[in-house]
Amino acid sequence: MNYKMVLYTMGRVVLLEAAFLVLPMAVSLLYGERCAVSFGLTILVALAVGFLLTFLCRGNHGTSSIKDGFMIVALTWIMLSAIGALPFVFSREIPSYVDAFFETVSGFTTTGATILTDVEALSRGMIFWRSFTHWIGGMGILVFVVMLMKTTDRSINILKAEMPGPTVDKLAPKSRDTARILYLLYISLTVLETALLLLGGMGLFDSVVHSLSTAGTGGFGAYNASAANFSPYIQWVLTVFMLLFGVNFNLYYLLLLGRVRDIFRNTEFKVYLGIIAAAVTIITVDILPLYQSFSTSLRQASFQVAAIMSTTGFVTADFTVWSPLSKTLLLLLMFLGGCAGSTAGGLKLSRIIILCKMARRELRRTLRPRVVDVIKMDGHRLEEQTAHSVAVYFALYMLCIGALLVALSFSPFDMETNLFSSVSCFNNVGPAFGMAGPVGNYSLYQPVLKLLLCAGMLLGRLEIYPMLLLFVPAAWRRK
Amino acid sequence: MNYKMVLYTMGRVVLLEAAFLVLPMAVSLLYGERCAVSFGLTILVALAVGFLLTFLCRGNHGTSSIKDGFMIVALTWIMLSAIGALPFVFSREIPSYVDAFFETVSGFTTTGATILTDVEALSRGMIFWRSFTHWIGGMGILVFVVMLMKTTDRSINILKAEMPGPTVDKLAPKSRDTARILYLLYISLTVLETALLLLGGMGLFDSVVHSLSTAGTGGFGAYNASAANFSPYIQWVLTVFMLLFGVNFNLYYLLLLGRVRDIFRNTEFKVYLGIIAAAVTIITVDILPLYQSFSTSLRQASFQVAAIMSTTGFVTADFTVWSPLSKTLLLLLMFLGGCAGSTAGGLKLSRIIILCKMARRELRRTLRPRVVDVIKMDGHRLEEQTAHSVAVYFALYMLCIGALLVALSFSPFDMETNLFSSVSCFNNVGPAFGMAGPVGNYSLYQPVLKLLLCAGMLLGRLEIYPMLLLFVPAAWRRK
Repeated sequence: MNYKMVLYTMGRVVLLEAAFLVLPMAVSLLYGERCAVSFGLTILVALAVGFLLTFLCRGNHGTSSIKDGFMIVALTWIMLSAIGALPFVFSREIPSYVDAFFETVSGFTTTGATILTDVEALSRGMIFWRSFTHWIGGMGILVFVVMLMKTTDRSINILKAEMPGPTVDKLAPKSRDTARILYLLYISLTVLETALLLLGGMGLFDSVVHSLSTAGTGGFGAYNASAANFSPYIQWVLTVFMLLFGVNFNLYYLLLLGRVRDIFRNTEFKVYLGIIAAAVTIITVDILPLYQSFSTSLRQASFQVAAIMSTTGFVTADFTVWSPLSKTLLLLLMFLGGCAGSTAGGLKLSRIIILCKMARRELRRTLRPRVVDVIKMDGHRLEEQTAHSVAVYFALYMLCIGALLVALSFSPFDMETNLFSSVSCFNNVGPAFGMAGPVGNYSLYQPVLKLLLCAGMLLGRLEIYPMLLLFVPAAWRRK
Repeated sequence: MNYKMVLYTMGRVVLLEAAFLVLPMAVSLLYGERCAVSFGLTILVALAVGFLLTFLCRGNHGTSSIKDGFMIVALTWIMLSAIGALPFVFSREIPSYVDAFFETVSGFTTTGATILTDVEALSRGMIFWRSFTHWIGGMGILVFVVMLMKTTDRSINILKAEMPGPTVDKLAPKSRDTARILYLLYISLTVLETALLLLGGMGLFDSVVHSLSTAGTGGFGAYNASAANFSPYIQWVLTVFMLLFGVNFNLYYLLLLGRVRDIFRNTEFKVYLGIIAAAVTIITVDILPLYQSFSTSLRQASFQVAAIMSTTGFVTADFTVWSPLSKTLLLLLMFLGGCAGSTAGGLKLSRIIILCKMARRELRRTLRPRVVDVIKMDGHRLEEQTAHSVAVYFALYMLCIGALLVALSFSPFDMETNLFSSVSCFNNVGPAFGMAGPVGNYSLYQPVLKLLLCAGMLLGRLEIYPMLLLFVPAAWRRK
């Protein structure tokens, strides 16, 4: 590992976090809340750590490798959460550090799982900070750093490690320009959503908080009832934007370039729309007896499908009481997640598509054993190495969820609760079923299990390998 | 498809089934039961179908391909079950044909899932037939046919399609000799178990029935309480033999050759022992408060671990009331299954081991991107194509279980029941949790869902591809 470079980059990120923390502090000051002091203290800690690291590791950094990119991402995300948890502890709004850490990891990984039983008791500054962590983590904080950096040789390695999905498309020749385009699109969509929420009569604070959470496909809100008490208009706006943030951002870039036909040629996008349509249709019919009116059923079904599929995890209904059919569909949607290159978690649809194509090829091989067969995606030949990695990733992903499930079984909860907690956290969805369901939370797990859930959320968000690398001694060896 | 050859082979298998049916008829006659007539009628049907097929398709068959092997296996298993279900219907002991078909598929696939609420009401002949289908299906009926066949060019294709596991080791240069060795080992172990059960004071009929079921890792017994009321000695004998039948049969061949050291060099075997030891230890401690005595806990834990891991599915305790930890472990053991080349179902441990090695290699690649890395298994280099197929198989396997789960959700049962029914049937285990748990059964599913469960059991037993091939139009094309 190139220690100097890794620590220097971490220092830069922590300084950036200090800058980000000014926003929630400003919110606290605006509302005259005492918790502004906690943010101030945390900013001081972040500045101290950041300046120390960048000062000690200044100078020539030499070259970097993929491994360094992975180590930077894993270590940075852990440190970000460790520091980001401080305001909750300093203000005593979440007195236990483990709980605060869980909440922050859940924020940055855009999971939205909470240990709070009463969200409304939080100060405005803290509510804003929770949603803001979603926004920062959604697009990836290191993508942001790459945008600010001048050197480009290590930036693509960082992008590769932090961006979800089987491949990273570079929109522009320079990683830095790619990062800029992505953040510009991200900010624009967030502002647009805020405006539309304001139009629906939502207050400014709530509009901003919910837009930030939607953009990162996180799920932290401002109310104990999540989105259940919002007007149908607001719920529809949230539904549409949750779905929009589950789409590959490259498609928005194509849209800006006027290449609309290319968008509808994108296989993943078509499958995304198809699955949403199918799931909404089935669930609408299925829950019709519960809600009586067709429009309510359609709204509830659309909202919950969008919330789960995009792994946002807002809630308008206690879907634990829905029929097994609807619940099973929601469970499977948790695994799928959104499109690659979006802020959504989960496995990503493009992986599922590649897996299906690989299975079809295996079947074809029994028919014509000697024919060499390539896998195509959107008209292009998919590299064998990529296909292979996707299949291995899927296996590793299921093994991780299985391991997390076994660990959670040491809790006093029933199997359904543990099953859904592990699936929901690993896929960065948020709410689970059972005890930790839409009307429950994660506060009752033992501290050590909360830390394991944190590991699960990070493994899911960073797509396993960066986190696993931390446990490989060879990765720590100085090069 | 080489129709002539496929239909001819199917005819041969049906004639063999007619021969097999003589045994349960003899049992019925011995006990003076009226159901002997039903077996007689079924034998006539089987003879008629068998002679017709072999007569019409006699003569030169030309060459065969892997595809033909797959089609033979898929079609034969369906026809075997269709005919094997007739005695239940003729005797009115299972009046509904769909139920009888379910029971027979469950028998041949060695699942052991039942739709019967009162097993003890069956006549002896039927009880024997149920267990005998396990025994036939366990080693594979086509393996038996291969043993009798003279032509060898198509036999390896059939072996490949019917034998579970990622690779087929040929014990002898000729497939026919391999099949003979396997069946000889199979018969010897079955006889040994019967003798040990007789020694424990079990009646001859019960000993034979339970040995046949254990050998095929099926799980049909003779009592409503399954194995719960047996003496500790009998339960231990069953435990040991369930585990023995979950071991790769090649290892017994090595044992006969005196190559003991090679056995303990076998990675899969070592992992098998390790997982059993770990699971038994954890569950014994976990259920100690329920059973008070250590020896009872150890016996219950060992029995249930052996029953689930070998996918036999005998039951000594209502494990639905066990703690979430024990239940979760049992659930995951269902996925694992036994060793490749055994009669057990499930994913097979060697696949899991290969997947873990592939994941480790992916991780190593981030450390040293340019190093070419081969995967080794038991000291030999594993072919890339095999590793690749294992990864794709795993994905397809999970997709199939997911699809089956969605289909079952249309039943009136809760999600836990459906989840475990699909996992248990697909992995050929048998008992599930919830409504279809150790003290329940599958009778309450709608007929169409029972047929889907049959499809799931066949998909699991034949390792997906042969069954999927039936839905590919190109596979039906005359060559």
